[in-house]
Amino acid sequence: MAEETKPAEVLLTVCTTCRRADVDPEGPRPGAILLDALTEAGLPEGVAIRGVECLSACTRGCSMVLSGGADRYSYVYGDLDPAEHVADILAGAAAYAKTTDGLVPWRERPVVFRKQSIARIPPLALPEQE
Amino acid sequence: MAEETKPAEVLLTVCTTCRRADVDPEGPRPGAILLDALTEAGLPEGVAIRGVECLSACTRGCSMVLSGGADRYSYVYGDLDPAEHVADILAGAAAYAKTTDGLVPWRERPVVFRKQSIARIPPLALPEQE
Repeated sequence: MAEETKPAEVLLTVCTTCRRADVDPEGPRPGAILLDALTEAGLPEGVAIRGVECLSACTRGCSMVLSGGADRYSYVYGDLDPAEHVADILAGAAAYAKTTDGLVPWRERPVVFRKQSIARIPPLALPEQE
Repeated sequence: MAEETKPAEVLLTVCTTCRRADVDPEGPRPGAILLDALTEAGLPEGVAIRGVECLSACTRGCSMVLSGGADRYSYVYGDLDPAEHVADILAGAAAYAKTTDGLVPWRERPVVFRKQSIARIPPLALPEQE
């Protein structure tokens, strides 16, 4: 019997046009390199990836959004380095994919997610907090 | 005959715990003041508002997310000032609500949206861009 496979709900959205200050501006864009490196490293179960042209976080490149459907918090991360952060990004995405609300306990988040979050966006379904 | 009214799809998500450097830390939180000021000024048609406790954009307070369903880009704005930006935020939200994809032409965006965008998140439905 074939197992039912759910489509990936968690999505890494990587800006492919992002530059970094430490990289040759004429060379391949660090954002595109990050997208390729994450893809080639192998995505965790339930996690998909896409490249987009701009996340308007240009001063914080490389940048990426981690999102996961209507019930999870979304996160925007910046200052990502394709040479340093690929394994931690994938570990963080795997932990996120195991939650229902996107809230991974602080100590279980990779340092890159703890320190380089630009913003988080609450899910629509969140009850109002006052 | 009663007209059919669509529920508001465009949402302003305002961080109510945001501080600003220029404000008494013991006084009411600027984020809560911004939420109240936007609400009292009168929301444009099709725009709703909610307060949340943190957008993780604490160094850029006051902060806010502008979102509008599965087909629109979402935007995170920062450095908002309840004393300066209420009318422009509401005008920008109204223009955003009139689009189907959230992309308001650059010149029609209020300056606060042009200059104080922290990030934008593409809709899920976006075709891949490479």
